[in-house]
Amino acid sequence: MIIDVLIDKIKETNNPTAVGLDTCIEYLPEELKMRVNDFKSAGEIIFEFNKRIIDAVGGLIPAVKLQSAYYEMYGSYGADAFIKTREYAKKQGLITIADVKRNDIASTASAYGKAYLSKSDIGIPAYDFDFITVNPYLGSDGILPFVEECKAYDKGLFILVKTSNKSSSELQNQTLADGKKVYELISDYVAQWGVDLRGKYGYSAVGAVVGATQKEEAESIRKRHPHMFFLIPGYGAQGATAKDLSVSLGSDGSGIIVNNSRGIICAHKKYSDMKYFEAAKKAVIAMKNDLNENAI
Amino acid sequence: MIIDVLIDKIKETNNPTAVGLDTCIEYLPEELKMRVNDFKSAGEIIFEFNKRIIDAVGGLIPAVKLQSAYYEMYGSYGADAFIKTREYAKKQGLITIADVKRNDIASTASAYGKAYLSKSDIGIPAYDFDFITVNPYLGSDGILPFVEECKAYDKGLFILVKTSNKSSSELQNQTLADGKKVYELISDYVAQWGVDLRGKYGYSAVGAVVGATQKEEAESIRKRHPHMFFLIPGYGAQGATAKDLSVSLGSDGSGIIVNNSRGIICAHKKYSDMKYFEAAKKAVIAMKNDLNENAI
Repeated sequence: MIIDVLIDKIKETNNPTAVGLDTCIEYLPEELKMRVNDFKSAGEIIFEFNKRIIDAVGGLIPAVKLQSAYYEMYGSYGADAFIKTREYAKKQGLITIADVKRNDIASTASAYGKAYLSKSDIGIPAYDFDFITVNPYLGSDGILPFVEECKAYDKGLFILVKTSNKSSSELQNQTLADGKKVYELISDYVAQWGVDLRGKYGYSAVGAVVGATQKEEAESIRKRHPHMFFLIPGYGAQGATAKDLSVSLGSDGSGIIVNNSRGIICAHKKYSDMKYFEAAKKAVIAMKNDLNENAI
Repeated sequence: MIIDVLIDKIKETNNPTAVGLDTCIEYLPEELKMRVNDFKSAGEIIFEFNKRIIDAVGGLIPAVKLQSAYYEMYGSYGADAFIKTREYAKKQGLITIADVKRNDIASTASAYGKAYLSKSDIGIPAYDFDFITVNPYLGSDGILPFVEECKAYDKGLFILVKTSNKSSSELQNQTLADGKKVYELISDYVAQWGVDLRGKYGYSAVGAVVGATQKEEAESIRKRHPHMFFLIPGYGAQGATAKDLSVSLGSDGSGIIVNNSRGIICAHKKYSDMKYFEAAKKAVIAMKNDLNENAI
């Protein structure tokens, strides 16, 4: 099962880091930026950048996470760069996560599932990622079509439970009449949606997005659901540190994958004497050491 | 302001219908389906289908709503068909709504806003719709970047409040500790987010998605927010009728746009002796009459 493959890769690399390829022109080093003048060149340069980052760090990490928003800024050329990056990452043996946060009613959720996890209605795969993120606002019938795709094609989901942004509390931390918090209610649904997709380590391929910046909430969700796998944003640019992650670990010291996007792909701004991909490698090694010393 | 343009077009056509171009190969008539064998031909045929539908019904309606999930099934060719359809609809004078239900933390929400409402970070517009749908699960800081794009580029939003699907109650109808329902809380946020974007009719360009299938909730939201504009899914294939819509109307008898997707683009299955675009036209006229006789 894909969740087992992810966990095995984390063990193998001794590194629960997903490199976030939130690649947009604004984030690129000058030498690449100056070669962009339209969507076509933008798509090409983004793919070139991603490829070099993957070449530099691929052996050190289990997974990459691509944030679709950035690619969507460049229309169909962005879509192409998204697909090509996924293909290249897969070829290098990485687990691929599409951070798309899709959500809709059943018939449409099924179309999104086909687009990102399996095959279109003409039998050809389009984006074909291993995992995608989805948003639970619509409830079960908007999620179960994705779960069906996961069962049929050995794929996985990360469902938003407690997001890393400050205003996430406005809805997610509301207390319900029965005393439960909204994020706790959603975490209970996630556990239920994923019950048939548990792998050999006990973790389900239907996991949760839980921000590293949300320590108290992460602790509460981990206590409720010892075998829920967490995709954790918020480390680095968003302000959380390795020490904040320990509450999210499962009892086996596993159960998490930690995303870092800007801290890695924009490392060339910090280490300005290095090539961007060497700077990214340096940032990945620093993060790996930080996680191993302070979190795991 | 774009919300005023939408309302004027509804008055002009005497028809608060958005035709939902949820175009996928599965829904096409056989004569088109048989010409599809890869993503390239899929994209071309989808655009041809949409163009003919728009030619047939464009003069009768104020707006089209494109559901991105279906286009995303065909990778970059689907993205192209999505963009071309938007361009063509705009040329025919229609208001364009991208039903993308996007949502993310601020930096990423801003990228989505640039992709769908304004211009990418290299100054070129990609999708450039008049309105998009967004999901409120992340709270204010995930929504305000979209509102900023609306202010700067005269665009609008429809934020999910109470969706048309059955399981929407699982989260949206939860009662909070203070007695408010989740959908009521979200509707209050929507009103607040849109307060600076009120047009000449009093309605804000930051509106709400409220399912026609959710009569009691629609009534409650309308009472709380007399000047919130509603994008209403759920009429037709999802089971709601024109009579269900009256509770959603504002005191001026306006304030709604009602989407119908499958009931129009799949009308060729019902009226099988007609060309698909003539069948769509017949369905649009029937819906217009139904809305005028039974809802407005």
